[in-house]
Amino acid sequence: MSFADQVERTLAALAATPGWRLLQQARPDCDDGTVAEILEQAAGFSERVLAPINRVGDRHGARLLNGRVKTPDGFRDAFRGYAEAGWLAMDLPDRYGGQELPLTVQAACAPLFERGCVALMMAAGASRAAAHLLAEIADEQLAGEWVPKLAAGEWAATICVSESDAGSDVGRIRTSAEQRDGRWQISGQKTWISFGDHDLTERIGHCLLARTGTEPGVRGLSLFLVPDTVDGSSNGITVDRIEDKMGLQGSPTCALRFEKSRGWLVGAEGRGLPQLFRMIELMRLQTACQGLGLASASVDIAERYAQERRQGGDPEQPAVPISGHPDVRRQLSAMRSRTEVLQLAVLELASAMDLARLEISPDRRREIDAYCAWMLPLIKNFGGEAGFDVANAAIQVLGGAGYTRDWPLEQYLRDARVMTIYEGTTGMQALDFLTRRLWRDGGSGCKAFLAKARSELASLRDRHPQEVGDALDVLDEFEAFAELMMSLRDRPEEAFWRADEYLGSGWAALSAWLTVRWTGQGGGYPDGMGSLRM
Amino acid sequence: MSFADQVERTLAALAATPGWRLLQQARPDCDDGTVAEILEQAAGFSERVLAPINRVGDRHGARLLNGRVKTPDGFRDAFRGYAEAGWLAMDLPDRYGGQELPLTVQAACAPLFERGCVALMMAAGASRAAAHLLAEIADEQLAGEWVPKLAAGEWAATICVSESDAGSDVGRIRTSAEQRDGRWQISGQKTWISFGDHDLTERIGHCLLARTGTEPGVRGLSLFLVPDTVDGSSNGITVDRIEDKMGLQGSPTCALRFEKSRGWLVGAEGRGLPQLFRMIELMRLQTACQGLGLASASVDIAERYAQERRQGGDPEQPAVPISGHPDVRRQLSAMRSRTEVLQLAVLELASAMDLARLEISPDRRREIDAYCAWMLPLIKNFGGEAGFDVANAAIQVLGGAGYTRDWPLEQYLRDARVMTIYEGTTGMQALDFLTRRLWRDGGSGCKAFLAKARSELASLRDRHPQEVGDALDVLDEFEAFAELMMSLRDRPEEAFWRADEYLGSGWAALSAWLTVRWTGQGGGYPDGMGSLRM
Repeated sequence: MSFADQVERTLAALAATPGWRLLQQARPDCDDGTVAEILEQAAGFSERVLAPINRVGDRHGARLLNGRVKTPDGFRDAFRGYAEAGWLAMDLPDRYGGQELPLTVQAACAPLFERGCVALMMAAGASRAAAHLLAEIADEQLAGEWVPKLAAGEWAATICVSESDAGSDVGRIRTSAEQRDGRWQISGQKTWISFGDHDLTERIGHCLLARTGTEPGVRGLSLFLVPDTVDGSSNGITVDRIEDKMGLQGSPTCALRFEKSRGWLVGAEGRGLPQLFRMIELMRLQTACQGLGLASASVDIAERYAQERRQGGDPEQPAVPISGHPDVRRQLSAMRSRTEVLQLAVLELASAMDLARLEISPDRRREIDAYCAWMLPLIKNFGGEAGFDVANAAIQVLGGAGYTRDWPLEQYLRDARVMTIYEGTTGMQALDFLTRRLWRDGGSGCKAFLAKARSELASLRDRHPQEVGDALDVLDEFEAFAELMMSLRDRPEEAFWRADEYLGSGWAALSAWLTVRWTGQGGGYPDGMGSLRM
Repeated sequence: MSFADQVERTLAALAATPGWRLLQQARPDCDDGTVAEILEQAAGFSERVLAPINRVGDRHGARLLNGRVKTPDGFRDAFRGYAEAGWLAMDLPDRYGGQELPLTVQAACAPLFERGCVALMMAAGASRAAAHLLAEIADEQLAGEWVPKLAAGEWAATICVSESDAGSDVGRIRTSAEQRDGRWQISGQKTWISFGDHDLTERIGHCLLARTGTEPGVRGLSLFLVPDTVDGSSNGITVDRIEDKMGLQGSPTCALRFEKSRGWLVGAEGRGLPQLFRMIELMRLQTACQGLGLASASVDIAERYAQERRQGGDPEQPAVPISGHPDVRRQLSAMRSRTEVLQLAVLELASAMDLARLEISPDRRREIDAYCAWMLPLIKNFGGEAGFDVANAAIQVLGGAGYTRDWPLEQYLRDARVMTIYEGTTGMQALDFLTRRLWRDGGSGCKAFLAKARSELASLRDRHPQEVGDALDVLDEFEAFAELMMSLRDRPEEAFWRADEYLGSGWAALSAWLTVRWTGQGGGYPDGMGSLRM
């Protein structure tokens, strides 16, 4: 049963993550037994409740009926079940009805849920991220009203950033907020709003960026919470359309129109975008968990198929399982390696984010924050990409069968395709990685990463000399690339031309390190054959 | 109008192909003006007739109704129009109603048709390849009956190889042929038969491998032509199902059951598979043309979108076209380069195949044949892969819009996904490239390639020293890899483990050479910025 296998793999990855081990010292409630039980419950819920609605969601999709979005059969019950079991609120503050578990535990469970049904998790992810945002930034009254409702899954939330002329270019947002009689009125159109409308909950709050001041670009943007209803009456929000997409059919992607809709300011005027990054950060980590969920499901399917499907061998003897063919073994190894390295990367980042919050030294906190900010674009982008690539590689293992809808792989591929687009495209992640994580932060996150990786690799050198040597070479290459990119700061056109390659080099370095960590826990290639391209 | 642009690009690629220039000397009827006119006609037909049915084919798909396949609206008329305009028969022998144009001209037109509607071209491609096979191998009577009908598009043909337990492992075919009263009776089941049934033509002939002798493996296989009707009566063939696929919805993929169906032996008993390779070879070249058609359509869409879509730049100024952003330019350059190199590769192979047929020296003929056989797995595999990858990259340029069905890119991606699966998976191409093209042929094709590539590069060195130097390095790397693989002949497990990487190295070498050819005709990266990974 592959959900259970994935629990075992996740527990092994947690055990191999030094940050998690450190965190456990501060959180004695998160002992191995308790965490194993949580993961088993998560896997059981996902297999029992989420997985069965995934194909239905794809085949029937969300629909727009009489101006409202109807979600696929089973979505509403599954969402309620998910919230009632406490999964939505697992890492939310206790005072708002959460269980206050570490983010690491949430990030360990999340890929199990995503594996079941990414489309429905789009609703859960936005609600949870909004709950964190409001708990941390909204005033007591607003947070007190909304966070417990979001935590309980009675209300839901969205993130509303994009407009038709303001996609990656957030600074061109035109939706405006005006204050009248002490109340904010929001007018404008927002596009690409996941679960912008639905029938899962009784109320929906939109975390929305709108222009308040006269300042151009992102400095004029403020953050509002705009509910779909106020005191039971509709709040001037219309669903203009839902997008007809390649995948994620169960997740309605809405274009919304706001006409003098009442909004509540969250945090400070003009600070909309930086504040919203608390939500965006969690959703980017979720994207990686989505990719991981689909990658792990895909590699499991490919492995099982390869053990059962018989082709080849001596024509006068029964055919042999294709898992015995070197080229198939190579494909499976590459897929598994990529998936497990991503798993380790997600847990490395989540545990570092947890540790940052516990850190009392401001300098040390800044360093960990920079390290996390350095990793996030890599893990977001290559996590999403892994979901697509591993589903694609699994289709190849199954051959013609993989191309049919008899298997879920083609859905996984279609669902995963958007993961390097939403929550910031690859190009935006590369710009972030270059201009903020290297140029603006002076490379502090990069340095923290290199120090940490080299220190762990040094400790593993005796046991895995070859692997450690190879990984150190990749780190050196990345460091040289980072130095080159730093030197191109005054030639931005040239630097931007290479930003994508630089992002890839960062992921290669992170992967090289974590591949050795994985080898240390018993992973690696069969028969001592080396790693090859996937 | 992008179809017309593609004609221009194809003409430029032809002009840059030395094999084509040589061929024109033997074929004065194929002067530049005539070929340009043919290509313009092909593009016009594709744009006017094929492109409009492509989305309909995807949305409605082929259906199984009362045991027969109904093709999507418009497919039948388009197929007739295609045949009546002479496109099906353009390179078939004159004596069978063909125009006897060089394969190179066919291969120059094919991507234009594939760009219009890959799904319908699946029917045309199989019919045309079968017509070539029968014209060359069947006896006079059978060829005389079938080839003119296939050429005229009145009848159609399929290739029937796979069975549920014999996919890549052709030697396990169990469909049997028995001779009774001088007639062959075929019984068995065949799967993955593209257009195994349809309503495009009045008759369908299946080019089918069945077991005749007692010899195991492929040596017991003979080739038959099995019509769906004989003298107007049904011939015992049942459509068990059509596959529910990820893409190519307009192309019905059938599982067929043959019950004592009458068949006509084609060629010699026991020579079924080697004979069928004439058909397979043409269909593998077609796969590359399919990939090229979709890649060229995708990059055109991405380029146009990038010129029109405005995002970014100084927030106080109007947004700039995204084609001005270095990272978008990099993406577009990589896509265009990959597409144009594939175009050159297809024409290089097709013109070499034409030249082989004109060659009178047996030694020289063997050398050209080996060169073609060396290129075919590369061009088949990476042509198909380019269709998928460039469609995928184009989706990325469009961002969220590319993920919607408002654009054809997501269909291109789904349609293209099967191209590295059918007509021999990547794994099978890699085995062919290693075990036959290197081990069995003693590397003769490989040597011919290296000599040809190095000779052309030497002639371009003065004009493009940097590019030629880089390409020669890639050729050297490939040659060293080929020597390593040759040395692994007695360690096949290890060799098979690296076969995929070896295939990739071959394509890298072929691409490196043809990239310089492309640079020579004015292609290349903007602003002198180097090529980066796609």
